[in-house]
Amino acid sequence: MEKIFVKSSKKYGTLWIYKNEILSDISKFSAGTIVKVYESKTNKIIGTGYVNPKSTISVRLLSFKDETVDEIFFKKRILQCKKYREEFLGLKENYRLIFSESDFLPGLIVDKYDRCIVIQITTAGMEQFKDLIIKILDEILCPELIILKNDSPSRLKEGLKIEKQVIKGQLDELPVIVEDDVKFIFDPINGQKTGFFLDQRENRTFLKRIVDAGEALDLFCYIGSWSLHLAKKGVRVTGVDSSQNAIDLAKENAKINSLTERCRFIKADAFDYLRWEIKKNRQYDIIVIDPPAFVKSKAEKKDAIEGYLNLNALAIKLLKRNGILATSSCSQHISEDEFYEIVKQAFMKNKKTPRLIYKGMQSKDHPILLSMPETAYLKCLIVNLLD
Amino acid sequence: MEKIFVKSSKKYGTLWIYKNEILSDISKFSAGTIVKVYESKTNKIIGTGYVNPKSTISVRLLSFKDETVDEIFFKKRILQCKKYREEFLGLKENYRLIFSESDFLPGLIVDKYDRCIVIQITTAGMEQFKDLIIKILDEILCPELIILKNDSPSRLKEGLKIEKQVIKGQLDELPVIVEDDVKFIFDPINGQKTGFFLDQRENRTFLKRIVDAGEALDLFCYIGSWSLHLAKKGVRVTGVDSSQNAIDLAKENAKINSLTERCRFIKADAFDYLRWEIKKNRQYDIIVIDPPAFVKSKAEKKDAIEGYLNLNALAIKLLKRNGILATSSCSQHISEDEFYEIVKQAFMKNKKTPRLIYKGMQSKDHPILLSMPETAYLKCLIVNLLD
Repeated sequence: MEKIFVKSSKKYGTLWIYKNEILSDISKFSAGTIVKVYESKTNKIIGTGYVNPKSTISVRLLSFKDETVDEIFFKKRILQCKKYREEFLGLKENYRLIFSESDFLPGLIVDKYDRCIVIQITTAGMEQFKDLIIKILDEILCPELIILKNDSPSRLKEGLKIEKQVIKGQLDELPVIVEDDVKFIFDPINGQKTGFFLDQRENRTFLKRIVDAGEALDLFCYIGSWSLHLAKKGVRVTGVDSSQNAIDLAKENAKINSLTERCRFIKADAFDYLRWEIKKNRQYDIIVIDPPAFVKSKAEKKDAIEGYLNLNALAIKLLKRNGILATSSCSQHISEDEFYEIVKQAFMKNKKTPRLIYKGMQSKDHPILLSMPETAYLKCLIVNLLD
Repeated sequence: MEKIFVKSSKKYGTLWIYKNEILSDISKFSAGTIVKVYESKTNKIIGTGYVNPKSTISVRLLSFKDETVDEIFFKKRILQCKKYREEFLGLKENYRLIFSESDFLPGLIVDKYDRCIVIQITTAGMEQFKDLIIKILDEILCPELIILKNDSPSRLKEGLKIEKQVIKGQLDELPVIVEDDVKFIFDPINGQKTGFFLDQRENRTFLKRIVDAGEALDLFCYIGSWSLHLAKKGVRVTGVDSSQNAIDLAKENAKINSLTERCRFIKADAFDYLRWEIKKNRQYDIIVIDPPAFVKSKAEKKDAIEGYLNLNALAIKLLKRNGILATSSCSQHISEDEFYEIVKQAFMKNKKTPRLIYKGMQSKDHPILLSMPETAYLKCLIVNLLD
């Protein structure tokens, strides 16, 4: 087994070892080589992980111990993941089974959608265990469908190719899941990420609980997850998304839930749509803003903040007195405090003074490691405009 | 009506006007004088409020409009408060009816405990409306008991005296409330604050939902609110508090809920108790830390951070593998991010890597004004130690 040494200042709790913390020459290793990491002064083990000599995060740890990374290791980890979701959180049909660093399996994401499993691998270190992981998942969960959704652009940087593949079963018809009392058809091959956003589940549930009528605008509605939950509670909803595929699926989802009368879905750019509605003096009781990440790197952060601010400030113009705004950011580089400040500024720009009634994060099957704030990415604020 | 002028830089959304923002001479006003505040350059109204020339926060606004502050004004405000709690939040028996700045009534706190109303007034500006407020509350809520709990030390700075008084009804027996399925006797005259902490209600409810057995330690247990909810779910609880009165009431509360077999309450300093238990190698499945505010001013902040860090680091030593820690801070001067960092450090000190499973704030009947982050004070983090 290869050994590498790091500086003694290495902090406990993070799985990431940066290039500048490493004293050994790692250029000789191929991406994905399993290494044991030691503290140079004391010769104490820091953990076991895999190397990528080309990445700034040069080692990602799989464990804080000296461990053999084999079938037994992966099986134990994956069973722990299942236990946490099913026994501790009480989730059954649909949940994120494996959330990368948060489950001590950096580079691996697995979502369970009832009998369909969608796998995403993002690093060369994890890629080498692909077949093993598929085998274990098949054994443990016995799914009907296994999909490999390896289309993350970060794979190219790792020297991996983009691939989308049905590994097990037939995808003749798109799978259907039930969340709360609403059915959703989703597309695990051509949809965003793994096809459905389980990370907003708890936030959707909260909003659903406090509404019972009125008119809602759902921006970046994707395949209608917020919209249909609201419609189910009696709200009339307009969902807006720039993707025709998403809109088609959202309409289909309204149909299978017999909610077509309360929902309409429109293909449009969210900013454009807001400006049209402002011109028409439209007003809504509920507005949902759940955009894709505006910032994928620290460098884009300033523009992203501007984007969130404009988006929220425009939407607020359409919000009725006593209305509810549920606004989210899934940009990992924008902190909770920063997002709070953006939403606050958007209201102040409009000279409005809302109350914060809910602060949500990613659902608990997307755990956050307390020692790695980088594992937290989703922020959801729900505010009520005072009457 | 008195007019005062402020600098044009005054930001929208806060009810506080600081001494250095004011251009007029306010030394002539007696504390509590109602004033209209104007922006000096534009002569536009900023709002209506009351003055305290001796305070750094020299004006607290009651409204962002030009408004007459009379019986009609207070009645409208208080009815809005009731509507928000009862209709919007769906609360019935027990709730904070008025939360000072967050309800545009700075200096006034009113808690409704079923048929008992407890009032706290903290500023000279609000004190002058005392009788009017009592009259309106009596009309709107028809309580059996009205208690004036004016013992906040901040009253002395405002030139007000400390007074605790039964205004209506008889306090021959202590009142009883029911939260979820647990009864609580509390003492609105000699207890802390208004007698019972409604602000932790939602956080208690969350913890209760995820536990079902095991052993818990409840530090700063006060009259047993966390303890008894846990015990009701089948957990064996040790509650620790330094106040004999609190411990007596906690025991009484265990009795009236027939939970004495699962609960014991001990009068002790929390830090001492933790050190004893560490010596004895005791381990708990669940630990609750809900201390009083460690920091009442910015000056004490450094010591307070040290205090929270030590407290949490000690408690973590007693936490079993797979155990749950529910830890809170109600210090307004410690931000959510700061508290997160404290708890993270406490675990890193112990070389433990927990998952964050819940981030809570004060219950929604203690609203947060988005534009005044000062109205947010309670942070509750619930973490799970990985097994």
